[in-house]
Amino acid sequence: MAAKTVCLLSGGMDSTTLLYHLIDMGDEVLALSFDYGQRHQKELEFAARACARLSVAHKVVDLGGVSELLHGSALTSPNVKVPHGHYEDQSMKSTVVPNRNMILMSIAGGYAVAEGCGRLAVAVHGGDHAVYPDCRPQFIAGFEAVLQSGNYGRVSVYVPFLNWTKTDIARLGLKLGIDYERDTWSCYEGGELPCGKCGTCVERAEALAAAGDSGNIPGNNHERRLEIQTKD
Amino acid sequence: MAAKTVCLLSGGMDSTTLLYHLIDMGDEVLALSFDYGQRHQKELEFAARACARLSVAHKVVDLGGVSELLHGSALTSPNVKVPHGHYEDQSMKSTVVPNRNMILMSIAGGYAVAEGCGRLAVAVHGGDHAVYPDCRPQFIAGFEAVLQSGNYGRVSVYVPFLNWTKTDIARLGLKLGIDYERDTWSCYEGGELPCGKCGTCVERAEALAAAGDSGNIPGNNHERRLEIQTKD
Repeated sequence: MAAKTVCLLSGGMDSTTLLYHLIDMGDEVLALSFDYGQRHQKELEFAARACARLSVAHKVVDLGGVSELLHGSALTSPNVKVPHGHYEDQSMKSTVVPNRNMILMSIAGGYAVAEGCGRLAVAVHGGDHAVYPDCRPQFIAGFEAVLQSGNYGRVSVYVPFLNWTKTDIARLGLKLGIDYERDTWSCYEGGELPCGKCGTCVERAEALAAAGDSGNIPGNNHERRLEIQTKD
Repeated sequence: MAAKTVCLLSGGMDSTTLLYHLIDMGDEVLALSFDYGQRHQKELEFAARACARLSVAHKVVDLGGVSELLHGSALTSPNVKVPHGHYEDQSMKSTVVPNRNMILMSIAGGYAVAEGCGRLAVAVHGGDHAVYPDCRPQFIAGFEAVLQSGNYGRVSVYVPFLNWTKTDIARLGLKLGIDYERDTWSCYEGGELPCGKCGTCVERAEALAAAGDSGNIPGNNHERRLEIQTKD
């Protein structure tokens, strides 16, 4: 019997690849996205599109009230500038939303219990470990133990990309037929097109180039990007 | 220097006693309540009143979107009957909101990080252990470890009542000058007055009687209670 799985889906390349992977394995999937006041609301449209394409049930939970509490991150506050460059840089710490993964995964875990799902799938990966402590193996293992101790052990946490690079994820996604340009959104800025400069744009482009996809190499759409940025 | 503490406050007798205890210790307290669609919305008014009385900053977070996901508990669904009798009974399992404590504590933990608070205070106690796995020491210890691993170890979890009975809590509260009848709300039903029959009404009355407070002995207000119940 196929597993019944809740999949945390941001609409970015990692979680969209995870969704395709679960469907490829034959899981029955309930996709869950969060509106926590992120600048990059656009990713939610991409999440909905991916679910429609795969005929997956999709819910978007409004966490507006919670995001008000968690001020100070560049991802939710219009007053903090989104840093440009690599994820590994110290500057990326401003993209940390306090305790974000624990909050989102706890809600998703409750949803899994309520829906009788045996697992919760999350697209954390090795590239996130340096900056985001709540993406590290120790955090994930501890989280799973707490989730189980609080809910009669009913839900396991499925993190197939835990020690993968983003390039590994891109390779799997291309094999599964994902058109990343069309199907996913990553940029932390709220522009019409990806900025090409924030951490997630840079990493995405490098991963896709390394995996053999030429559609996202930095420099494409350069002029339209500049146009967007001057409007910000 | 006094600690800066986030206190999870439902407005019931346990968390209100915890709030008084923190203030008594000299903590700077930020109180946090949740509107998760509970029938007993009235407890939120009592939470606000207690904070006003103690001049404590108080926020109420709307978790309406989350509670829609976590259907099936008697505390949030109008279609599930609130069970009467003792907490220890099997019937009390219908008052379990899937993963509730992990969700609420995770959000409160994020709030503590965002506000630079060194601890998160939660009023779980020994009487809850039988039915609610997410009130047990193992859960709390695991939760604290995960919270710390996800947030650079900045927030500890303070659970002074973890192995207390409800009577122990009532004794402390009476010593701290709490008028439980006036200052707190416990009933799971949404009536004008406490029903006197649900698990939390029964436990509250027994604890207060055992601690020497005569204000909440079952049978008081009996006729007005019956009046309320026929309206339900």
